[in-house]
Amino acid sequence: MKFKRSERLVDMTYYLLNHPHQIVSLSCFSERYGSAKSSISEDLAIVKQSFEMQGIGFLKTIAGASGGVTYIPTMSKEEASKLLTNLISQLSQAERLLPGGYLYMTDVLGRPQYVNAIGRMIASVYASNGVDAVMTMETKGIPLAYAVATQFNVPVVIVRRISKVTEGSTVSINYVSGSSKRIQTMVLPRRSLTPGSKVLIVDDFMKAGGTMKGMINLCNEFETEVTGIAVFVETKDEKPKLINNYQSLLRLSITEQETALKIENGTIYKNFTLLGGNS
Amino acid sequence: MKFKRSERLVDMTYYLLNHPHQIVSLSCFSERYGSAKSSISEDLAIVKQSFEMQGIGFLKTIAGASGGVTYIPTMSKEEASKLLTNLISQLSQAERLLPGGYLYMTDVLGRPQYVNAIGRMIASVYASNGVDAVMTMETKGIPLAYAVATQFNVPVVIVRRISKVTEGSTVSINYVSGSSKRIQTMVLPRRSLTPGSKVLIVDDFMKAGGTMKGMINLCNEFETEVTGIAVFVETKDEKPKLINNYQSLLRLSITEQETALKIENGTIYKNFTLLGGNS
Repeated sequence: MKFKRSERLVDMTYYLLNHPHQIVSLSCFSERYGSAKSSISEDLAIVKQSFEMQGIGFLKTIAGASGGVTYIPTMSKEEASKLLTNLISQLSQAERLLPGGYLYMTDVLGRPQYVNAIGRMIASVYASNGVDAVMTMETKGIPLAYAVATQFNVPVVIVRRISKVTEGSTVSINYVSGSSKRIQTMVLPRRSLTPGSKVLIVDDFMKAGGTMKGMINLCNEFETEVTGIAVFVETKDEKPKLINNYQSLLRLSITEQETALKIENGTIYKNFTLLGGNS
Repeated sequence: MKFKRSERLVDMTYYLLNHPHQIVSLSCFSERYGSAKSSISEDLAIVKQSFEMQGIGFLKTIAGASGGVTYIPTMSKEEASKLLTNLISQLSQAERLLPGGYLYMTDVLGRPQYVNAIGRMIASVYASNGVDAVMTMETKGIPLAYAVATQFNVPVVIVRRISKVTEGSTVSINYVSGSSKRIQTMVLPRRSLTPGSKVLIVDDFMKAGGTMKGMINLCNEFETEVTGIAVFVETKDEKPKLINNYQSLLRLSITEQETALKIENGTIYKNFTLLGGNS
């Protein structure tokens, strides 16, 4: 079957969006469409320009006969800014405050369009770090972790509080919850992580960072490298944090009587400002 | 900014893929690209043909000046068949057997490319049912539920075993686990579901179906309609099942000494055969 350019452009866009951070050879497209590599190269130049113009991401091309292309999903500064503003307005209602300084976010994090957009934002910031796996702690962080991992095309590794029968043999560590000061246990199946791999840790909510610190220790236990730490909402008042070098999308502060809250941009926004719209 | 046709096709593909099951007006595209509606209509005809040719999905067009287009993601029979064969070969190793007749699937369900493809397969089968929300039970079903919900562009509702402090007020029911015969409790936040909405229930593993039956009861409690039930792997030997009208992707049988396993196509494959490649 032979494809016209217009049809190739549609399918190529679909294909690249579904194979992020992965080298796709010119031959792959050439065979898929029964077209010459020179035509494919021209198609890719059009796709590249459209992606960059609309802030969808980059196409990194590798020249030569054995060449190919890698799609790197990113988010433009404009889209990031709009998304954060939207999230702030959704989450800033006082009735979202829950006992113990928590925030009701189940509805917002239940909507795939938000979760996937947040995932793309986080993936955008860590796009050049090299990510082999995304780690999270059950259960609230799971959707975000998959959204990020989809953008990197890498597996998700879920740390659990107790060992499940369906996991096989496990490695467990104890950690101290930063805010409640209680000793807890976290567990990961032995076969989940390869030594030497680069792990991006993602979670939905962070107070002092005890859980995050536990996950970092677990990564050390598996001889893997923590290549980044991203959290959706961190609290502003829990200080000092137990970890450094993390990025937060949003920052929550609560009045002393727990009657009012304020949400503002976290550390991640600055990255987009510096990137200048990823251009 | 004015867009060329080739650039419009790339961006339009991206936009439609990110807004499934949602009417996008011609005016939306017309403003986005600074192009006449007649050009947009021609573009959409090309996108429609490419999507259908490659089994990516359908474009349902609504004619007229106030018209628009809806992208319905589907999977072709060929792709479904290939995916199921691939999953069967991955999961058919005897060392995956875990005590109690469970199957180690954490690695497979940890990979977004599988999870997202399974989600598209399920969404394909229920494409015309009308789905307002996807429901699952924590925790293993969560990634699948989000993958399906992404295709329908609807929220995910997560049923929990215990009430969490971060959930607000909840509704709980008791149910009997079909295989262990134990009474358990499942909980859903009061504000999660709107009465009258259509709910698609998704889970990763089903033995007798006690958990599924519990979720159906919970749906009744919220006065919602169960529009479909889909499970990734069901066991063949637990009979009779406590529920009807569900679809399974795969079916697992285990020898009596739990030393060997067999995985075959579940009920879902027949749907694709009948659909004849969705054409």
